[in-house]
Amino acid sequence: MNTCLDCLPCIFRQTLDAARRVSDDPAIHERVARQVAAWIHAADLKESPPVMAQRLHRYLKGLTGIEDPYAAAKARDNALALSLMPELRERLAVSSDPLLLAVRLAIAGNLIDLGPKHDLSAEEIRHSIRQVLDAPFSGDVETFRQAVANACDILYLADNAGEIVLDRLLIEALGPARVTVAVRGAPVINDATMEDARAAGLHEIVRVISNGSDAPGTVLGECGAEFLKRFTQADLVIAKGQGNFETLSAAPRDICFLFKVKCPVISSNVGLPPGTQALLWSRAGKDSKGRS
Amino acid sequence: MNTCLDCLPCIFRQTLDAARRVSDDPAIHERVARQVAAWIHAADLKESPPVMAQRLHRYLKGLTGIEDPYAAAKARDNALALSLMPELRERLAVSSDPLLLAVRLAIAGNLIDLGPKHDLSAEEIRHSIRQVLDAPFSGDVETFRQAVANACDILYLADNAGEIVLDRLLIEALGPARVTVAVRGAPVINDATMEDARAAGLHEIVRVISNGSDAPGTVLGECGAEFLKRFTQADLVIAKGQGNFETLSAAPRDICFLFKVKCPVISSNVGLPPGTQALLWSRAGKDSKGRS
Repeated sequence: MNTCLDCLPCIFRQTLDAARRVSDDPAIHERVARQVAAWIHAADLKESPPVMAQRLHRYLKGLTGIEDPYAAAKARDNALALSLMPELRERLAVSSDPLLLAVRLAIAGNLIDLGPKHDLSAEEIRHSIRQVLDAPFSGDVETFRQAVANACDILYLADNAGEIVLDRLLIEALGPARVTVAVRGAPVINDATMEDARAAGLHEIVRVISNGSDAPGTVLGECGAEFLKRFTQADLVIAKGQGNFETLSAAPRDICFLFKVKCPVISSNVGLPPGTQALLWSRAGKDSKGRS
Repeated sequence: MNTCLDCLPCIFRQTLDAARRVSDDPAIHERVARQVAAWIHAADLKESPPVMAQRLHRYLKGLTGIEDPYAAAKARDNALALSLMPELRERLAVSSDPLLLAVRLAIAGNLIDLGPKHDLSAEEIRHSIRQVLDAPFSGDVETFRQAVANACDILYLADNAGEIVLDRLLIEALGPARVTVAVRGAPVINDATMEDARAAGLHEIVRVISNGSDAPGTVLGECGAEFLKRFTQADLVIAKGQGNFETLSAAPRDICFLFKVKCPVISSNVGLPPGTQALLWSRAGKDSKGRS
């Protein structure tokens, strides 16, 4: 997905959020803002928004030497999601459609995203996950159910810390034996890395691999060989979150995207109102609306 | 007031709003966005936000040749405000404190601002003006009342079209014989010009002058001689709107600012929540918080 002009004010706002999280020094904040302005001036808008975010977070690391400024936030969100697991497992146990409920819980977890949104309070996160069925849902669940039934090899692209704990519920519903989970190759924003997969206990039930990249999405040209092999060969790829959608919606294979519609640009792109839990297929060679 | 880093995403958003209002051509939108990014990269943050807005709107005029892209919006907002005048005059006629009510109505009119906000609907504007007493108010009304009582010569700096119609109610309460109204010297955003003063009928009751500048605020270094003379000599200067506050809060004379707090930056600067109707004095040589 291209970066559109409406992404630019948001990139600017995220820049300030990130710079302030990394440093208390207003001179650093200003320097980063001016640098991002220079990038925007000369930006290749055919690049997806996560590529710009990747450049920003690499620059912040270089300036401050801080490798993982979101480490505490990620640990907090993992712990919060873990604390909800017993009650969510109870709901799944009595659900008449546990696969759909697990899909919706995994999407509900996608609100834990420190890119587009400022910090949500623990209470807001808890409430939104508990009220998972209150949000509008859009997607062809039967096609998904069929694809899952037919797949021997499922690649699951995780998105954020916290969220990855809820992903475990869906992975359990899919059947862990045939699932590989891919996480980011290095910390960026609050995206899930190997450490978060371990916090979620995923390493105990599935194979977890790194995608080899520090983009807050999946930039195939940067990903490692093992990841690319699995990405190409898997019967079914499930990709979580807007960042994966933005970077993979035109990828050369069918992908099932699961995300919460969080910004007006994505909302307009997929034709769904903000807040929607979206289960969306991209088909190789076609865009998200099925246009070839 | 300096431009702060949090103004930058907002300037970017306003840039897109303005570019789209002036042209349907995405190439123009992109060119303007890139130009503003270059300005931000090299910006003098000691300049106030209206100076950046002035530069943007001059650039848009140069690119498109359109002198007054907000002409229709301004005419619509003047007509809307004029349609409310009979009922507002009735309320003033029975008010126990018509000066304060007129102050609050003039501030309520300040929500008609196409800079920080997207278009408000006619119904939102009507509702907000009719419910003028529902908004929180902050300011020392008695000091204002005293200043008005003591002034022989009042300079009233208008802000936006539509709003200027409601300003008339306050100007009538002040006593038009001693009031001069200043408007922008040329169209910029929906700021009031001589044409809007005439639409409000102000030319029939007071002297109306141009400030000689096309900034959406009052940049003294650009203003005309007649304006500067009156600005210096007036017993009382009343300045409407955030743009005038941003450009004049450190001016070398006492000024009474009347505006609706509309953005988080101003809110933080003046220590009042967004939505507040603010009556605020700046004292020569001190900032808005009275610090020298």
